[in-house]
Amino acid sequence: MHRRHFLGALALSAFARPATLRVNAARLRQHLEALSEFGRPAGGSFADGVSRVAYSDADVAGRRYVMGLMEAAGLKPRIDAAGNIFARRAGSDPNLPPVLFGSHTDSVPNGGNFDGDLGTLAAIEIIQTFQENSITTRRPLEIVDWCNEEGFAFNNGLYGSRAAAGHLEPGELDLVWNGVKKSDAIRKVGGNPDRIAEARIKPGAFHCYLELHIEQGGTLEQVGMDIGVVEGIVSIDRYDVEIRGFANHAGTTPMPQRRDALVAASHLTIAVNDIVRKEPGAQVGTVGQIAVTPNAPNVVPGLVKLTIELRDLSSPKITGLAKQIMARAQEIAKQTQTEIQIRPAAHHDAALATPDVQRSIEASCAKLGLKSRRLPSGAGHDAQMMSTLGPMGMIFVPSVGGISHSPQELTKWDDCARGADVLMETVLTWAA
Amino acid sequence: MHRRHFLGALALSAFARPATLRVNAARLRQHLEALSEFGRPAGGSFADGVSRVAYSDADVAGRRYVMGLMEAAGLKPRIDAAGNIFARRAGSDPNLPPVLFGSHTDSVPNGGNFDGDLGTLAAIEIIQTFQENSITTRRPLEIVDWCNEEGFAFNNGLYGSRAAAGHLEPGELDLVWNGVKKSDAIRKVGGNPDRIAEARIKPGAFHCYLELHIEQGGTLEQVGMDIGVVEGIVSIDRYDVEIRGFANHAGTTPMPQRRDALVAASHLTIAVNDIVRKEPGAQVGTVGQIAVTPNAPNVVPGLVKLTIELRDLSSPKITGLAKQIMARAQEIAKQTQTEIQIRPAAHHDAALATPDVQRSIEASCAKLGLKSRRLPSGAGHDAQMMSTLGPMGMIFVPSVGGISHSPQELTKWDDCARGADVLMETVLTWAA
Repeated sequence: MHRRHFLGALALSAFARPATLRVNAARLRQHLEALSEFGRPAGGSFADGVSRVAYSDADVAGRRYVMGLMEAAGLKPRIDAAGNIFARRAGSDPNLPPVLFGSHTDSVPNGGNFDGDLGTLAAIEIIQTFQENSITTRRPLEIVDWCNEEGFAFNNGLYGSRAAAGHLEPGELDLVWNGVKKSDAIRKVGGNPDRIAEARIKPGAFHCYLELHIEQGGTLEQVGMDIGVVEGIVSIDRYDVEIRGFANHAGTTPMPQRRDALVAASHLTIAVNDIVRKEPGAQVGTVGQIAVTPNAPNVVPGLVKLTIELRDLSSPKITGLAKQIMARAQEIAKQTQTEIQIRPAAHHDAALATPDVQRSIEASCAKLGLKSRRLPSGAGHDAQMMSTLGPMGMIFVPSVGGISHSPQELTKWDDCARGADVLMETVLTWAA
Repeated sequence: MHRRHFLGALALSAFARPATLRVNAARLRQHLEALSEFGRPAGGSFADGVSRVAYSDADVAGRRYVMGLMEAAGLKPRIDAAGNIFARRAGSDPNLPPVLFGSHTDSVPNGGNFDGDLGTLAAIEIIQTFQENSITTRRPLEIVDWCNEEGFAFNNGLYGSRAAAGHLEPGELDLVWNGVKKSDAIRKVGGNPDRIAEARIKPGAFHCYLELHIEQGGTLEQVGMDIGVVEGIVSIDRYDVEIRGFANHAGTTPMPQRRDALVAASHLTIAVNDIVRKEPGAQVGTVGQIAVTPNAPNVVPGLVKLTIELRDLSSPKITGLAKQIMARAQEIAKQTQTEIQIRPAAHHDAALATPDVQRSIEASCAKLGLKSRRLPSGAGHDAQMMSTLGPMGMIFVPSVGGISHSPQELTKWDDCARGADVLMETVLTWAA
């Protein structure tokens, strides 16, 4: 978007919006609390989190609630062939591509009540606010509740947005999880797997995709910022590591004769941590999974398998970190008389947010008197799929303690409303 | 045993044994090979090891074979109430307590063909050799095949010798393993759990207990020694460690905000290794078992449970090592922002071999022209239970590569025969 266009958009929308336009924070909270009941642990409260795994009965009930809210906001929701819920509000110029915004409402098991929910319900709240304030944008608005973002079901996330972006994997609809075929799960939520190709969105079919989400990390809270302007969704490289030592009797094998795979794995885990922390930047590196064989208190470990995961906005940066880790691994192998094999297991490209969208989010913050800061998203989001089709931007709000995917996941109600207001301002900018 | 007594014993036995008395090495090998067939993997050979877990059908068949060998050597085997197999050969003075010697023939799953088997079949071979050479000792001889030394079944080793030493645990006979009650397993091998108390051996009931065993470590091979004279069976202290960090998203949690329990566990594992190696001596320390929660590639580990096992002949020494480890653990906890709890989980006293027995084993080696060296046993043995009842000594022969509890477990046939000869000499000394 050019600077001139940007100014033009502001000018065009100015007639229609009061300077103090805000979402109804109390209603947004009430909707978040009401949605939290679908998948809530029996006898629990909002603070006990939610298990609304995609395609579950709780998910179906939650989606029905979401569609009800859309209807209450004057929209007619429709479910596409993949199971995504869309709802469109007309603009003054019906020939223009819409501004698309939303998020998801499925959760991980024992998840929280903000991840996805906030961005979806804020989108509806914005439409409701426009209705109440008789605001008509030039461009149409389209809101979305993506299906199965978390990917706990069928172990493959961003399903709905991948279907829209044409990135489904071969045979994905034939996957079976908990005895259910994926195509049947899609039917359960109202999709039509036989016509899945119709779920694809053409590049250029939307003017801009926007998503409000909780940060899930602790950076905004720590630096005292209201809003995070997402620079992009990080690149992820995962490596599978196999460390071969020699399993032997922990009583009879003298220390100098040991080839202890767990001692080698410990050195490698520390090396990953040290190498990733050594350089400035927001890159992260994790050894999160480890399996030891034979894993008995009285046997020197003979085999360790572990995973290394590296993330950063810059793919070359994590490739460079991996090289350092591999070099260090060979030194560790020598020192510990083990063999260490490191194999690339998965690669996800980074999805950079569109610079113009980032700038307009910052402008929205400035207008609302909110402090913002740019930061990468370490987690994956549906936005990364939309970035393959058109301009994309994401708005983060602080997560208390940086906790997510947990019943302890929490974003303050004021921050929820602030995030929705920033999204609303940015929608108005792009829809003008 | 006093020196005068020792000389006297040599004098008394001299009339009965030719200077060149040796076991029949070829027959001993043949018996080891024949025993290996009970529990051998289908279609495998001797080199494929054995699974003769206590109370299994293979164990019952192996014990039947052992009893057949005893009968062939002129003995009448009997099974005690605990399921141990004993066989006695009369001495010229029936009023004296016997010299007791033997080992066990049960194995771990996928074990080798020397651990226990060698000591048991060598005991029978010695009796056979005495028969053939018309040697009568002054004291009676009693040989034994202990029941369930390995303790894979019911997860509690040295069962037979513990029953003999009166160290069964409360309720032990009611344990259930693989759907079978221990008392029924004991009946299966010919024992009588209702009269288990009758399996107890009174202190002083034997003159000396001797056991030939493979080293299971690599020290003898490495220093080029024929025979190991065991100084004792080490003390074992086991600790259960719990490391509490905080599980969080591996993408969204910046490195400085992490409380990674696996990074802490890695530092602790290296600390155990370093602290144990730092001091001179034969002590060993092992982190052999580890469990990580939630153990997913994309989650910062929040909880790690692991075991620390320390072994040495000196209990104060490993207590001192544990103190150093605990102090280091508190530093690690601070550095990694985790909590580390280390709780004592098990303690086994050291069982020192009787100095006079050690000296007589060395004298046997000298007589046979074999090089010997004293060393601790890092593994547990039935001998440690017998040490609570009377004088005890153990003879080790080299393990190729220090490997045991594995099909690759190997002791050269010449070394098997040498060990049996040393045992025979020592039996003659103590039985005179």
